[in-house]
Amino acid sequence: MDIDTISEKIVAGDRRALSRAITLIESSRKDHREQAALLMERLKGAERQAIRIGMSGTPGVGKSTFIESFGTMLTAQGLRVAVLAVDPSSARSGGSILGDKTRMEQLSRDPNAFIRPSPAQSHLGGVARRSREAVAVCEAAGFDVVLIETVGVGQSETVVAEMSDLFILLLAPAGGDELQGVKRGIMEIADIILVNKADGDLKPAATRTCTDYAGALRLLRKRPQDPAGFPKAMMVSAMQQEGLEKAWEEMTALVEWRRENGFFDARREEQARYWFEQEVRNGLLARLETPQAREAMQDYAARVAEGTITPTVAAQEMLDGLKG
Amino acid sequence: MDIDTISEKIVAGDRRALSRAITLIESSRKDHREQAALLMERLKGAERQAIRIGMSGTPGVGKSTFIESFGTMLTAQGLRVAVLAVDPSSARSGGSILGDKTRMEQLSRDPNAFIRPSPAQSHLGGVARRSREAVAVCEAAGFDVVLIETVGVGQSETVVAEMSDLFILLLAPAGGDELQGVKRGIMEIADIILVNKADGDLKPAATRTCTDYAGALRLLRKRPQDPAGFPKAMMVSAMQQEGLEKAWEEMTALVEWRRENGFFDARREEQARYWFEQEVRNGLLARLETPQAREAMQDYAARVAEGTITPTVAAQEMLDGLKG
Repeated sequence: MDIDTISEKIVAGDRRALSRAITLIESSRKDHREQAALLMERLKGAERQAIRIGMSGTPGVGKSTFIESFGTMLTAQGLRVAVLAVDPSSARSGGSILGDKTRMEQLSRDPNAFIRPSPAQSHLGGVARRSREAVAVCEAAGFDVVLIETVGVGQSETVVAEMSDLFILLLAPAGGDELQGVKRGIMEIADIILVNKADGDLKPAATRTCTDYAGALRLLRKRPQDPAGFPKAMMVSAMQQEGLEKAWEEMTALVEWRRENGFFDARREEQARYWFEQEVRNGLLARLETPQAREAMQDYAARVAEGTITPTVAAQEMLDGLKG
Repeated sequence: MDIDTISEKIVAGDRRALSRAITLIESSRKDHREQAALLMERLKGAERQAIRIGMSGTPGVGKSTFIESFGTMLTAQGLRVAVLAVDPSSARSGGSILGDKTRMEQLSRDPNAFIRPSPAQSHLGGVARRSREAVAVCEAAGFDVVLIETVGVGQSETVVAEMSDLFILLLAPAGGDELQGVKRGIMEIADIILVNKADGDLKPAATRTCTDYAGALRLLRKRPQDPAGFPKAMMVSAMQQEGLEKAWEEMTALVEWRRENGFFDARREEQARYWFEQEVRNGLLARLETPQAREAMQDYAARVAEGTITPTVAAQEMLDGLKG
């Protein structure tokens, strides 16, 4: 595959080239990794900027329906939308989120939309790099909005937040003490909480849930990167296509404010640093993955388990061995 | 400090030697680390085994009162009890859990009890190694029970579970949907859930909470290391000293069963392997902490933030530099 050609085609909006590039990025073959690195360097020159929207929601909140409705609304406004998924659990479950495009029937046939399921990878580090690079490729391909969706598994929300300009938490209406159902960290990550299914019988519950979360968000310390009123909670009905335009207005207003106040670029720079540091760490740890290192690790581990050597001393010897 | 002497004194039950040993373990000075490693090798020979009980509970559940009552009950039975804390946040907050011994007035004056606050460390890896070694020292010193308490911050519960024979989750009575307030992972870690404050006005709420958790625990897949009925939820009142004997009976019954069925030793072996692997990983990552590596990291990070190099390529160059 010729990197110059594929790079030009991507920038020209060729969807097949885009798909092939993402496949290249997802490959773990050494030569593919090198080609991918080259491609990323090349695409950097495109200097296009999408709004990267991270999105999380546990199964059952209506994520697919939301993406279908929201994405279709955006393309109807003339915007080009890419949808990517980050799901470190997909390797385990055998499936992958977004794998079932039939749940986004309209959007998946939309010429201005591009949907890509999560790569099948066993560890979050691998998924993270591939997703981050896929976001950059979609950006270079001229998409206006890149939606990066994840399920609330382990650290996946943090990972997605680190590649997004803003983060949306999708919730379903709930009763009583449901505030506690949301992981602690996510209230700090979320810029906008959308309470979905605000329609029919669930409308009153949705209203209550939205009020509860709005109250909870007000209790959080104000973040410098937020204009007045943010983070905020809003109601939407993906099924009835209600509240989606309003949600999009809020998103763009937030992005606009951050751009004007320097937080948008600052955040992207911070994210680039973060990913660089992560890659260095992962690269160092990869030294434990050679056949010799694995064997040595196993031998020491066996002696540690027997109790003939302490973990600390065994680790020190192992590290000395890696140096030599 | 002479390691042979201090080691003998610890085994003979000398409390000052024990305190000094833990101070040595907590030091990050290179010569202290070497001495500590030597000491740990020496104490391995003591071949004493305590019951290591990990314990978590968010602020407000009455953890200090529980430890005071539970520990005092144990020493009244003639058992020697050590209490250690793992709190990676203590460096940030400036304080430390267990720092305020006045909240365990009776236990802290008890000659058969030893209380040690969490070391002030900024990162969990450091706290973890020091705490794990402190547990082993207390064990060699002949304590029958080592309580390792933590607050539910980040990964600290996992860390504590990895140095414990059983894990107790302390909860307060709550209303409605409170099940969701507990972090997902902890339901898998907990062997016994104790609903504290089952007294006075809170008794009905405690009963309901206990029933709810008992129900939730029954929904979990049975773990091979559990006899029938475990994990289980029980009510206690640390303030009224109710239910503590029963809780202790359940703990010892669980430990006994695991000993007889080989799970006790198997778990300790697994934990030793885990800590060995963690130390190797941390040791590798320490290569990024030299002045030269820090400087190179900063330079690359700046270029990555500017966008003149991609995170992937920068990371590759950085890693190549570390090799040379």
